[in-house]
Amino acid sequence: MKPAIILIDPQLGENIGMVARAMWNCSLTDLRLVRPRDHWLNEHTLKAAAGASDRLNETKVFATTQEAIADLHWVFATTARPRCMEKIINTPKEAADYMVQNPTLKTGILFGRERSGLHNDDIAMANVVIEIPMNPDYSSLNLAQAALICAYEYHQAWLEDSQSLKERILKKDPALKENIILFFEHLERELDKTDFLLPLEKRAKMVRNLRNIFQHIPMSEQDVRTLRGIISALTFKPGSPYKGFDNKG
Amino acid sequence: MKPAIILIDPQLGENIGMVARAMWNCSLTDLRLVRPRDHWLNEHTLKAAAGASDRLNETKVFATTQEAIADLHWVFATTARPRCMEKIINTPKEAADYMVQNPTLKTGILFGRERSGLHNDDIAMANVVIEIPMNPDYSSLNLAQAALICAYEYHQAWLEDSQSLKERILKKDPALKENIILFFEHLERELDKTDFLLPLEKRAKMVRNLRNIFQHIPMSEQDVRTLRGIISALTFKPGSPYKGFDNKG
Repeated sequence: MKPAIILIDPQLGENIGMVARAMWNCSLTDLRLVRPRDHWLNEHTLKAAAGASDRLNETKVFATTQEAIADLHWVFATTARPRCMEKIINTPKEAADYMVQNPTLKTGILFGRERSGLHNDDIAMANVVIEIPMNPDYSSLNLAQAALICAYEYHQAWLEDSQSLKERILKKDPALKENIILFFEHLERELDKTDFLLPLEKRAKMVRNLRNIFQHIPMSEQDVRTLRGIISALTFKPGSPYKGFDNKG
Repeated sequence: MKPAIILIDPQLGENIGMVARAMWNCSLTDLRLVRPRDHWLNEHTLKAAAGASDRLNETKVFATTQEAIADLHWVFATTARPRCMEKIINTPKEAADYMVQNPTLKTGILFGRERSGLHNDDIAMANVVIEIPMNPDYSSLNLAQAALICAYEYHQAWLEDSQSLKERILKKDPALKENIILFFEHLERELDKTDFLLPLEKRAKMVRNLRNIFQHIPMSEQDVRTLRGIISALTFKPGSPYKGFDNKG
């Protein structure tokens, strides 16, 4: 039960198209329009919808807000500025969490006319107001941007709920510590032929520093071969046998 | 230290304007353009920027990505689809949290050209890739929408942080990208004297791989000096003047 996005008195086809696109980016499909301007489905609408233009065919049109929300259980109203009404205020994230945590509720989010926002009568239809926390010096969001943020927060909450999204490091062949240590020893052996690790009483500390620098790399076996290849290449003396490491993988 | 938003090869003034608006909605002001189309600051740009149009005067224009990121410490690259590169992947929220928790780092987020996204060479300049988790059936975001989501997540993380002060990861002297690039070039110059980066047609790919390996290290200026010191030491030929880098810090 994903939320419906309900645009009240939308004036520009372009905005309707951009909202449809942002919705489909976030796997939302239930777009409802209340009193859209005549000929709202025009070339600007389709162009702005881009890859989501097919979705526009499913758009439902209503004459009143009441009809548009009749089949819903819970409605949010978005406002740019605080109104003199006693309403619970949610951030987009709080609203998203609420919807995901109450998956049996059929929900919707109301967005007002481009210039003037929602009428107080429409806000009074809503259970909760959504306020998007923005720069207090410039909080005016374009309609499609406001819809994107609400849809995006819903999608994130939904994803988090359905899997647990974490930082992923894509590594096909993580290196064994054994081979990483061989790399360290290779490097240090070569540096010992230079004065890099002198004076001797500082050597242990410098070796630790070096190893710590490289420990940040989540090394694959191929990375280890590449790094050892670098050392071999840099230290190669013409005439001596070349013990190369594959770096072409 | 709020992040810079860096648009590479932006083609439409309208998109630049919408990005400026989304940034200012989220209290971001450091907009950088790399090779924007001629006459990018036109009536479409200003109209799309709406209340943020004054901010466009502060936009900086660069000829290369390298110059655009030279004064930064940590760079994110946004991609719509997974690339065949071994990079750490963050969600916009993870990236935002990282930036807010490391307030002394000067950071930036790279966005590619409208149709094609970032070039692999630009991604190789970045420490971490940002992937925006979207509907897998339709993940293509408009440039301004992608920028909005990254800016919005930063703003939310910043708001949360300014309300509750958290533990921070402390780096004393984070390296400037400028110096990290000098290190890359030093390494590659020395490797070019060997057969490590051959055959020539594979060089670009191998250089990218190398850079990506080292991007995992959150380098301090001292780390850069140490790594360059290693190269100098390993390539030192007896009799030639030693151009050392301090490694005793």
